[in-house]
Amino acid sequence: MNAPVTIPPVTFDRRADFPAIAGWTYLDSAATAQKPQVVIDAITRAYATDYATVHRGVYARSASMTEAYEAARVRVAQFIGAATPEEIVFLRGATEAINLVAQSWGSRLQAGDRILISTLEHHSNIVPWQLLRDRTGIEIDVAPLTDDHRIDLDALEALLTPRTKLVSIAHVSNVLGSIADIARVAKAAHAVGAKLMVDGCQAAPRLAIDVQALGCDFYTFSGHKLYGPTGIGVLWARADILADMPPWHGGGAMIETVSFERTTYAPPPARFEAGTPHIVGALGLAAAIDYVEGIGLDRIARHEDALARAARDMLRSFNSVRLFGPDDSAGIVSFAMDGVHPHDIGTILDEAGVAIRAGHHCAQPLMAALGVPATARASFGIYNVDADIGRLADGIAKVTRIFG
Amino acid sequence: MNAPVTIPPVTFDRRADFPAIAGWTYLDSAATAQKPQVVIDAITRAYATDYATVHRGVYARSASMTEAYEAARVRVAQFIGAATPEEIVFLRGATEAINLVAQSWGSRLQAGDRILISTLEHHSNIVPWQLLRDRTGIEIDVAPLTDDHRIDLDALEALLTPRTKLVSIAHVSNVLGSIADIARVAKAAHAVGAKLMVDGCQAAPRLAIDVQALGCDFYTFSGHKLYGPTGIGVLWARADILADMPPWHGGGAMIETVSFERTTYAPPPARFEAGTPHIVGALGLAAAIDYVEGIGLDRIARHEDALARAARDMLRSFNSVRLFGPDDSAGIVSFAMDGVHPHDIGTILDEAGVAIRAGHHCAQPLMAALGVPATARASFGIYNVDADIGRLADGIAKVTRIFG
Repeated sequence: MNAPVTIPPVTFDRRADFPAIAGWTYLDSAATAQKPQVVIDAITRAYATDYATVHRGVYARSASMTEAYEAARVRVAQFIGAATPEEIVFLRGATEAINLVAQSWGSRLQAGDRILISTLEHHSNIVPWQLLRDRTGIEIDVAPLTDDHRIDLDALEALLTPRTKLVSIAHVSNVLGSIADIARVAKAAHAVGAKLMVDGCQAAPRLAIDVQALGCDFYTFSGHKLYGPTGIGVLWARADILADMPPWHGGGAMIETVSFERTTYAPPPARFEAGTPHIVGALGLAAAIDYVEGIGLDRIARHEDALARAARDMLRSFNSVRLFGPDDSAGIVSFAMDGVHPHDIGTILDEAGVAIRAGHHCAQPLMAALGVPATARASFGIYNVDADIGRLADGIAKVTRIFG
Repeated sequence: MNAPVTIPPVTFDRRADFPAIAGWTYLDSAATAQKPQVVIDAITRAYATDYATVHRGVYARSASMTEAYEAARVRVAQFIGAATPEEIVFLRGATEAINLVAQSWGSRLQAGDRILISTLEHHSNIVPWQLLRDRTGIEIDVAPLTDDHRIDLDALEALLTPRTKLVSIAHVSNVLGSIADIARVAKAAHAVGAKLMVDGCQAAPRLAIDVQALGCDFYTFSGHKLYGPTGIGVLWARADILADMPPWHGGGAMIETVSFERTTYAPPPARFEAGTPHIVGALGLAAAIDYVEGIGLDRIARHEDALARAARDMLRSFNSVRLFGPDDSAGIVSFAMDGVHPHDIGTILDEAGVAIRAGHHCAQPLMAALGVPATARASFGIYNVDADIGRLADGIAKVTRIFG
């Protein structure tokens, strides 16, 4: 007698790769992803066996570490389809990348120039442009959302003008999971002579990325959301744009020659990596990329799509639940419950061993547009399985009982 | 019968704490320090057991991680004698800290204002002020060195004027090891109404620091030179100064409220920590501080002073060696050899299992003042012992034989 075996066609179970989630339903991957053992091992090896500085040592270990650091840059370039590794700048994270673009590339903007963002942007893709506005007198336009909570690309295109110098939008919304058609926006932006910057924080862990196919000009993501270490992130920009950008932070490694009279600057990416970099962060990020590519981004995308759809279907079965975002969200599901503050949802779920996030998710203007002060958000990762949806359902049922 | 036991009064042998240096004479701690196992363990534990984001989660693990991250801030504050933990800003490193001060605090400076640095500064304490000069029209004054390669404080004081708004100097020279009398400079700077910023990168691992006793206004150091992780560093500033500084990078965590019309900013230190921080970097830095304080900074200072004096005495025994810097250098010894390029010294020493650095050490103006294109530099750390001086001596003898 054979027991019935159910193998979901597009999902997998990689929980055993992640030592920190045993017995836990972790649904906060959009905030930060847990780390597979291979990434932890890469970090440990870097510190406990291979450690040295980069770019400067005349001894063999430093040369090896420099090779590993630059190989990590090559790895990132391959991962997102950059034309050359020199288009990859290592930074602390996506927030720093957007600030770099705002302060360096943006320093050439003038009063009357316009930057176009959208209603669903994370604060990190709003505030840097506001700070630039305060300094330069540029204007910020904001594309609204469609009824199903995508960026309204028709409206976005209608807001483009010859004064628009940059469009900067999220590839995937950190609150709603909605995916923007970047290739379409790139064509529209370029048609008026604007550049396109893409905040890929939530996309890089969930979708296969090819910056050349997307046609954008800047792309950024954070390592810690891609199963890598904290404190490391990436800015990609087209080589010609990066080469034309003025220096940002001054310091070691970003110069050619320094005298008190006159200093000359190194070409990119060194120009934008002043000081000793987060060496081990870059190596850990490369290990994380090896890991996710070993599974395959297409498989991960299908896995998270299946989990998000299952979560939405489950949540819809509760009358008190209000869902946000489109059905084809990329692994991120925001919701509210009648008469229950999202923080209370989070607390009750926590007691049931389920970690979600509750709050404004660093997207207060989006909360205003949705008409809520906060949402509850379940976000998925490689390590989530169907059973996590079941535990989330049990927790929501408990919330309903308590507040019902 | 008792065997004779020799216990050096001021030195110790902690090599066994550092897994990456077995069989190796590592004399490049001024570039970056090796990591004790307790720091590596703290990093591994953070990723493999305790991992979660900070400041945002409504679940217990995130609350615990937030406590650990803020406890690291408290630990840093205690380590340097800050008045409150809110005076501690976590950044990527000292380079970023100086750029933050130049861009945020410095944004209020005007043409005609003056900043005073010294000839021996690292590029990270030169170029940010040059970039600020290019933007604002400030002037940069440069204090010269004494004959024994200290900052000439008499000359520095003579350069102070009522237009001097900031003095920014290294506590310990990264090339020469010379120690500046910060308390004296603070008094002189304050007498003309200037602030004092101190680059403590080489001091924090080698001297007990008390920012209030020093009397400075800003202090910065990097974690990776203090036996901690890469990608983490600290800016300390007096609470009233920090509170008055405008926002720097925009993003999550640094705001109070965001709307497209008007954004308000959080008080320090959050105002200057936009985005997800290098969480594990902060925890690793706290573990590193626990480690060095477990030994005692005074003991470490005596240990490195003894090693540096022994190295200088040994190097003096070679006729072809020219020594730079004062005899009481803090664990850093630069030298040159007649007719031998420093890179060749470094390469031959590497073959003998001794890692030093050769080059301009990101201090080209100092090289110009010393009249050399580069120096060889041996720099010491907790893990160095007398035997390392012997191996360095053997290596220098080999260089002498090859080039003699």
